[in-house]
Amino acid sequence: MSKVIIGVDLGGTFVKTAIVSTEKKIIAKASRPSDAEGGPKAVMDAMEASVRDLLEENGLAMDNVLAAGFGAPGPMNWKTGIVFSPPNLPGWKNVPLAAKMTKRLGVPCYVDNDANVACYGEYWLGAGQGAESVVVFTLGTGVGGGIVVFGQLLRGIDGTAAELGHLKVMRGGRKCGCGSKGCLEAYASVSGMVRTASTGWNSAKTTLKKATGGDRKKLTGRMIFDAAVAGDAYAKWVFDETSTWIGLGAASMVNMLNPERIILCGGMIAAGDLLFGKVREVVKANAFAVPVKRCKILPAGLGGDSGVIGCAGCALARWQEDNK
Amino acid sequence: MSKVIIGVDLGGTFVKTAIVSTEKKIIAKASRPSDAEGGPKAVMDAMEASVRDLLEENGLAMDNVLAAGFGAPGPMNWKTGIVFSPPNLPGWKNVPLAAKMTKRLGVPCYVDNDANVACYGEYWLGAGQGAESVVVFTLGTGVGGGIVVFGQLLRGIDGTAAELGHLKVMRGGRKCGCGSKGCLEAYASVSGMVRTASTGWNSAKTTLKKATGGDRKKLTGRMIFDAAVAGDAYAKWVFDETSTWIGLGAASMVNMLNPERIILCGGMIAAGDLLFGKVREVVKANAFAVPVKRCKILPAGLGGDSGVIGCAGCALARWQEDNK
Repeated sequence: MSKVIIGVDLGGTFVKTAIVSTEKKIIAKASRPSDAEGGPKAVMDAMEASVRDLLEENGLAMDNVLAAGFGAPGPMNWKTGIVFSPPNLPGWKNVPLAAKMTKRLGVPCYVDNDANVACYGEYWLGAGQGAESVVVFTLGTGVGGGIVVFGQLLRGIDGTAAELGHLKVMRGGRKCGCGSKGCLEAYASVSGMVRTASTGWNSAKTTLKKATGGDRKKLTGRMIFDAAVAGDAYAKWVFDETSTWIGLGAASMVNMLNPERIILCGGMIAAGDLLFGKVREVVKANAFAVPVKRCKILPAGLGGDSGVIGCAGCALARWQEDNK
Repeated sequence: MSKVIIGVDLGGTFVKTAIVSTEKKIIAKASRPSDAEGGPKAVMDAMEASVRDLLEENGLAMDNVLAAGFGAPGPMNWKTGIVFSPPNLPGWKNVPLAAKMTKRLGVPCYVDNDANVACYGEYWLGAGQGAESVVVFTLGTGVGGGIVVFGQLLRGIDGTAAELGHLKVMRGGRKCGCGSKGCLEAYASVSGMVRTASTGWNSAKTTLKKATGGDRKKLTGRMIFDAAVAGDAYAKWVFDETSTWIGLGAASMVNMLNPERIILCGGMIAAGDLLFGKVREVVKANAFAVPVKRCKILPAGLGGDSGVIGCAGCALARWQEDNK
């Protein structure tokens, strides 16, 4: 039989695993706790067990596996597969993840950053299929990104490229976690949206006050989203503001890369037209007509699985590169 | 003997021509009026004569020419070589420049946009030599740009990529010529600098008032630059502001592409440390440490000839692509 590729997407809470055929068919997927509090060994145990269990459940063995790809939070060196010290992986310090997993599984293992694998997943099997240039924004607590051009991930010379959350969109603007000011992430992330909701909070007439018991520190992205969908005008304004910032970031990418697709990932995309309508409107008003016309702005085609599928896709591409 | 490549950089005022050997040696350069007011035929006559004269002066004939590359203002289709209707080329409307020049010269002719050829020139024979990823900002009346990644020009799917002047750097900011607001060009161009100098003009104590006879509409970039170099505090502030905006644009590119070099082109680079010191400081304060450390921020290595040399470089690369 033909070989399969394994994808493993490592987050602070869950490990997602997938088996994909070399003909791009998704064979199986699974998710289990990442045991992050146990440190690197516990996490690698969980990942190894997840891979072996999923193979067995599907009547496959390690002999059927061509390669395995791991997505992990940065910073890291994707070439050597060493993960430095991600904030949400306690106890990790310069862990040679690719080497260790290669030894454990006995197949070639590759490591890439989590936003890059999400981008590659969308390019390979999601909303970016058939395009040669794709930009992905991952909208969560922060804003991550990935760029595919000339049919390959643009990782940059040190692998730090595509930090789309740290485009400067407002000189002298909000302080960002990166130490700079006015980064896209400070406005367009879920936490940025919550910050926006603080603006005018005291005088606002909004159902969000009831939802939070009047304590705006309890505000979540979900509450804002739910209230906006239910017609709360203040929540709608907050959501529109956030979408406008995302649109400005997307407009910069349209002018800069003239890509075929811009794909948004993350829980926020459940908002559908409330998000995409505004983003498309802002891009149209702020970027050049020819690249605007070219670029489709779409929700992730693989939903929450862009990352794990992309892990498999990256592993295949890198294995092919190593073996050509 | 080995073949040569011709570069022809077409501007609204001058046509620059260069002969470069396939071993990357610049053999000769020339400049003459572009006769733009005479329309497309007059301009093509001037370009053809310039090429033939320069070859003859250097003891070469068309038989020695492998290919010729033309840089022209956009909008255009670089693949077909059709130039649409550049604002500073009166009478041009969908001129098939590549086809016409191929017929006139009898060698394969290629057309690319003027900022892209400048970027390629710096990558090929200028301050970007030896790097595989280069970002160029062309600082003039407007702000143009070019991007080389994976050793090739990133033109985008329609050829409109690398519009670095139209990164959104200030939501709700200055109106830009493109119709949007808060574009980098509205702040970081020479005309943006002149606009910045209007801020606080009335109360400013500055030698610029004498230089302009008190009429701030007569203000030029050159005056601001000269006054800043001479120690005028107001002019220095204006120049620093402009450099800060350029630095913010550069910081976004460092975070986005993790390039090996960012190269600034245009008359403004004569300011030397006054410009580069500030730009480097702003990039360091606003982008991630690893890509900041990697990226050299440099003045154009080819001075005003990045474009014409890049025309030859692009022609060689495209000829090789066509003949591989």
